[in-house]
Formats: sequence, C-alpha cells, structure tokens
Amino acid sequence: MKVGSLVQKNPKSIDQNATVFDAVKMMYENGLYGLLVTDGDNHYVGIISERSIINRFVLRNVPATEIKVKSVMRTPIPRVMADDDIKDVASFLSSNGLSRCAVFRNEGELVGIITITDLSRHLSVQNVSEVLLSHRSRKFKFRCPACMVGTMEPVYNPRGEITVFKCNNNKCGHME
Amino acid sequence: MKVGSLVQKNPKSIDQNATVFDAVKMMYENGLYGLLVTDGDNHYVGIISERSIINRFVLRNVPATEIKVKSVMRTPIPRVMADDDIKDVASFLSSNGLSRCAVFRNEGELVGIITITDLSRHLSVQNVSEVLLSHRSRKFKFRCPACMVGTMEPVYNPRGEITVFKCNNNKCGHME
Repeated sequence: MKVGSLVQKNPKSIDQNATVFDAVKMMYENGLYGLLVTDGDNHYVGIISERSIINRFVLRNVPATEIKVKSVMRTPIPRVMADDDIKDVASFLSSNGLSRCAVFRNEGELVGIITITDLSRHLSVQNVSEVLLSHRSRKFKFRCPACMVGTMEPVYNPRGEITVFKCNNNKCGHME
Repeated sequence: MKVGSLVQKNPKSIDQNATVFDAVKMMYENGLYGLLVTDGDNHYVGIISERSIINRFVLRNVPATEIKVKSVMRTPIPRVMADDDIKDVASFLSSNGLSRCAVFRNEGELVGIITITDLSRHLSVQNVSEVLLSHRSRKFKFRCPACMVGTMEPVYNPRGEITVFKCNNNKCGHME
C-alpha cells in the first residue's frame, strides 16, 4: 500500500518567526500534535511536535512568547514520497526515531503529513512496535541549520537552564 | 498475558511541589516521557506526561520554574492491576485516551508504569491502533482535585494566555 493513500491532507503550518506560544495555541485549538513550519516565502522549512517543544523550549525557562518556532523546529523536514510503500515509511520513521514525517509528490509538492498512528492500522505488529520503540529510545538530535553538518547541543547555566543551543561543529559554532 | 510481566519497574517519581522545570529536567536526563507524582508522605497522587505539560503549562506563558507539578499532573492516577490481562489494559488505555498508566498489586502497592509502547509487541494491530487513535482524538480532561466531580478548564485573558485553571462545577469553583 502506498503512503499517499493514508496521508492527512492540508496539514496546518505556522511561520518560523511565530512564537512557541502561537504554535501551541494553534495545536491546541485544532487538536493537533505537530505542525509544519514555513519561511516568509511559504516554503516548508521545518516541522514541530510536542516532543520538540518539550526538549527545546521548557528548559530555557522563559515564557512561551519569547522563543520563536525556528529555534524549536526540526529541520530539514523528514520526508518520504507519496508512492513509497507504507512498510518503507515505517522503516524510515523507525531508523530516524520519528513519529511523523511529511509526504511529498514530485520534487517540492507537499501532499501532507503521515504519523505512526495513521500507519498503525495497516502495518504488522512488528513494524508498529519498532517505530514506537525507536521513537522512545532515540534522543532528539537537531541538525544545525547554518552548516547542516553539526548538531545543536544545549548549553546550560549553573541553575540547569538552557541558555542557548550551540552547533557542535567547531568550524561553525552557530547559536540560537 | 498478565500486564505485571511487562511493566517498567521502579518508575521515577517527583514531588508535587517541584516545578515543571524540575520535572522536565528529570525526564530529559533519564530519557523518560512520564513521571509519577508523590505528596509529602510519599503517596502517589498523580502522573505527568509530555502531553499534560504541553496542555497545562505552555499557554500559561510563564517560565517553567513558576508552575508546580501539582498544577499540571493528571489526578487521580489512572491504574490497572498487575494480574490484569494486557488486552484489558489496552481497552482501559483506549477508553480513557491514555498512552500510559500505573500498575498496582493488592491495594496500594505500586509495581510500575506500563505504556502503549511496552504493550505493542504483545497485542494485535487492532488493539494497538485503537489506543493510538484514542490517544490522539481525546482532549485532555483534568478532574478537579478539590471536588473530584468537575473538570479543570482553562481561563484565558485577552492575549490568549491561560491565567488559571478553574473547576467547571459551580458549587466548587476551585482554581489553580
């Protein structure tokens, strides 16, 4: 079965310069647990989920209106193609520790979002539990949006608060 | 199969007067997505998860050190017994829109926590997808800890921030 037949179409998106507050409000009002993120030109540049908000926002210990979506999103967007088989999509989610990804057609045409929940009714128990287990065991890694090589690591102050995320590639050192 | 044989033993717990900051730090450092909550006498009084933090903390728009765990936890603790069959536990999770619950033995002896991920390898596809779907579709309800009858509903200010949660039972009106 092709993943294109199961996909949630017309997914909600939010601008990368909106705040975490705006994003959670949109998620809450629409009963959603993830959003796509766009830049000023309406290109899709990232994806956010409850987990990325927990991992990248709460320990900054500031109000939700003070952190922008672009500092919390996963980028680039994990993606599969609409004519991929659902088993291959499950493997993709599992090997990347994801619960959701974007589905594209051709090069840049977004079809929608697919989650492990959407897939679960059409997969074997083994496939479903692989994705669930990998999602749990995997520490979230954020690729650096500047160099696209390093990963963004938290920098803590003595109180255990995250003051900034810094790229672990010494040649880059991008912070956000 | 009995749920007692699959349970995660020695689950981590946190005091109800600790802050959301402390809870997320403990979850992050231990690779956990939920914690049990205790009162001053080491009784288990609630449970918190990533979802309860998203739903009950972020829209308050204050730093994570300013909100206590007891204002975010689900109480009373959803619970099953160690000798319950895993299919019945799946039904319990599904009918309550939960992804996890506590497992007890006898009256008050905690064995551990069980999640849909733990169960997934031992259930049918139908059972797993029922729990996943109900977890997604269900709006989180928090029972009022004062009257145990009403549910705690958010009160918003004009900026869309949650200023307080208030019990919707008119005779109670408890706020937190």
